[in-house]
Amino acid sequence: MGRQTRKPSLDTHLVAGNGLLDRRHLLAVGLAGASAALPLLAKAGELNIEPWMTTPGAPFEGYGRPSRFEAKVVRTFVSAPNTGGTGSARTPLHRLNGAITPNGLHYERSHNGVPDIDPDAHRLLIHGLVERPLVFSPETLSRYPMESQIAFVECGGNSGALYQKEPADLDAQGLHGLLSCAEWTGVRLSILLDEAGIDPKAKWILAEGADASGMSRSAPLAKAMEDSLIALYQNGERLRPSNGYPMRLLLPGYEGNMQVKWLRRIKLTEEPTMTRDETSKYTLLTPDGKALQFVFPVEAKSVITRPSPGLDLKETGFYEISGLAWSGYGKVSKVEVSADGGQSWGEAVLQEPVLPMALTRFRMAWQWSGGPAILQSRVTDETGYRQPTRDALITRRGSRAIYHFNAIASWGVSGDGKVSHVYA
Amino acid sequence: MGRQTRKPSLDTHLVAGNGLLDRRHLLAVGLAGASAALPLLAKAGELNIEPWMTTPGAPFEGYGRPSRFEAKVVRTFVSAPNTGGTGSARTPLHRLNGAITPNGLHYERSHNGVPDIDPDAHRLLIHGLVERPLVFSPETLSRYPMESQIAFVECGGNSGALYQKEPADLDAQGLHGLLSCAEWTGVRLSILLDEAGIDPKAKWILAEGADASGMSRSAPLAKAMEDSLIALYQNGERLRPSNGYPMRLLLPGYEGNMQVKWLRRIKLTEEPTMTRDETSKYTLLTPDGKALQFVFPVEAKSVITRPSPGLDLKETGFYEISGLAWSGYGKVSKVEVSADGGQSWGEAVLQEPVLPMALTRFRMAWQWSGGPAILQSRVTDETGYRQPTRDALITRRGSRAIYHFNAIASWGVSGDGKVSHVYA
Repeated sequence: MGRQTRKPSLDTHLVAGNGLLDRRHLLAVGLAGASAALPLLAKAGELNIEPWMTTPGAPFEGYGRPSRFEAKVVRTFVSAPNTGGTGSARTPLHRLNGAITPNGLHYERSHNGVPDIDPDAHRLLIHGLVERPLVFSPETLSRYPMESQIAFVECGGNSGALYQKEPADLDAQGLHGLLSCAEWTGVRLSILLDEAGIDPKAKWILAEGADASGMSRSAPLAKAMEDSLIALYQNGERLRPSNGYPMRLLLPGYEGNMQVKWLRRIKLTEEPTMTRDETSKYTLLTPDGKALQFVFPVEAKSVITRPSPGLDLKETGFYEISGLAWSGYGKVSKVEVSADGGQSWGEAVLQEPVLPMALTRFRMAWQWSGGPAILQSRVTDETGYRQPTRDALITRRGSRAIYHFNAIASWGVSGDGKVSHVYA
Repeated sequence: MGRQTRKPSLDTHLVAGNGLLDRRHLLAVGLAGASAALPLLAKAGELNIEPWMTTPGAPFEGYGRPSRFEAKVVRTFVSAPNTGGTGSARTPLHRLNGAITPNGLHYERSHNGVPDIDPDAHRLLIHGLVERPLVFSPETLSRYPMESQIAFVECGGNSGALYQKEPADLDAQGLHGLLSCAEWTGVRLSILLDEAGIDPKAKWILAEGADASGMSRSAPLAKAMEDSLIALYQNGERLRPSNGYPMRLLLPGYEGNMQVKWLRRIKLTEEPTMTRDETSKYTLLTPDGKALQFVFPVEAKSVITRPSPGLDLKETGFYEISGLAWSGYGKVSKVEVSADGGQSWGEAVLQEPVLPMALTRFRMAWQWSGGPAILQSRVTDETGYRQPTRDALITRRGSRAIYHFNAIASWGVSGDGKVSHVYA
């Protein structure tokens, strides 16, 4: 069956340059009524009888799997030399839609592989500046009051390649894939700390993982008391091993490395512990050669996942520009999209519910005329902070920085529809 | 390490009989301050060095899996004789928490197995009373404007065993496990129907699946235009084969059988088509021997998932009673819990965000004294409808009914902490 594309005459729907359209208006009048150039398969008639319609299908499975036709939708990963699990595995953002990341594709950053923890042997110790130290097993914790929160986790090093002087020839997964979102369920850390009795001198916590790297970080006690969870469940089921089974710390909105996986110990302290992981890594080098330490929340950021490299445009006409926006400071309040490299902007539609510290899917209608385009998105969060340009961020941080890259990213669309990573 | 349990003196927190407590008040004063009888592992001191702390962990995986220690958390299934895939596979509700069902555990009802559909060969035809028939491939649909909705799917036959005269000796999975919830993303059906041009005579749609049973159902055109999706994604990734890959119909709030999987055809008609599936099954037999047909929305319903059979109470003290509530008519507005078989009720806390047509997790604090208890929950939805007692439902429907059982269910707790299905 061949394709046919109707002619564009959508000028009355334009909200910004190079073909950005008013999605709400467009849907209200109907795409057909608006003469949107939509893809159709012509010659609608009888459908084929395919083989799966005439033979019984597969039997039931206890635990299901994706279709074999989606075998390419996997995490990509790189490990340090001579290791299999020291590095990171990236979420294929460009092949997903919605806001939830399925557990099998949640990104992972591990410092010495994924431990195979027996939950019956695992313990969480709360000690240090407390009236009485407490020890919990996963089973005892499961008796406690629980809460759920849909929250993103983003590695502090995500998008770090965009600090480089030349745009890396990578796709959304390779550039921005250390980012995922799940519904986390567990016990409020404040309940357990109250139970232990907090010494007034305590101002920080140390959180330590039970993996073979002994990954550990310091965090403010105030955050631990405000909204943090000991998460036991991820999208309904127990945490995946690569995401901290049987329990992890969730400090909503803080950089991913703080969400300590395989959590075995929380120690209340007067000062930060100055662990290896927070002194040798996860600091922000500034242009004057000094480093910022303890920059915890993820600044507001957005990224277009479709179109993006690997999802080239095959014909002119209507496309949906879609992506993700988030902020470690609360809710996303606005996302704007540009198709002309930031000269003009149109406001995208946000998928409800918009939740604090969660990924928010945004969508924008676009009519591609066949000319070159540069696609960008920029988010404003509820504090009024707006995602900066790359130039502004580089000026502030220098080009030797590694972490917390949150500036506007750009996809270039060439006249033949090829999409690639560019600076603009 | 032994356990210790502190003495209960929680009377000031009681909200209903047999130990139900005010969760918000309890958490405000602190569980420890309230002398809640919480489980602790005594002798908090040094933790053991477990083997996974001293050897590198497992390498990265492209597509992750649950821990081997969670191997029991699987769907259970029954097939018709001499078939592997004609029947249903049930979600292990009692082993999950939160509201999202992970894709590997989403319930499944199939009428002739799970087809292995090549998405490049799959087509969706829209025809019948339209100005021009249209055909879409998954790839062409992916160009269209998308939306996401977190929505439950519940089989019309879920909990049907509770129509029986004696309580079936089953757990939450066996009784109520034809129920799941996911974030679905796809194209509004109204966009495609507008595109096809609706003949004013059309009042119904026929939706047909591409499986080898040719499963098909009629639904009101008004519903199709109101809020229905052609879903392509489930919790971020493409639909699982057992949930309709590459596309399914989503009629939010309607009984599961209407959410036609492997969708290949939508035909607009004047009248319902009277397919095999809507005449031989999915009708409601009433006491006078007549049957109700085309009862589509799922009535408001709730079920306690913890404690429940298989999760026996091992000692007296504090427990969280937790479960799921939903309504096919909109949002859940209130869930009440009873520990004394419905003599007294306390209001549960609802996990935000409470979304229409989605599962809502509810939670209630409970102090188990060691005496017998009968745990029940009842939901009220935003229309003011309240979940009926089993007696009231049986009086209305008769005991030979099969579908749409939505009455209050009961778990009995014996003096030794054993939890079982009872009628009360």
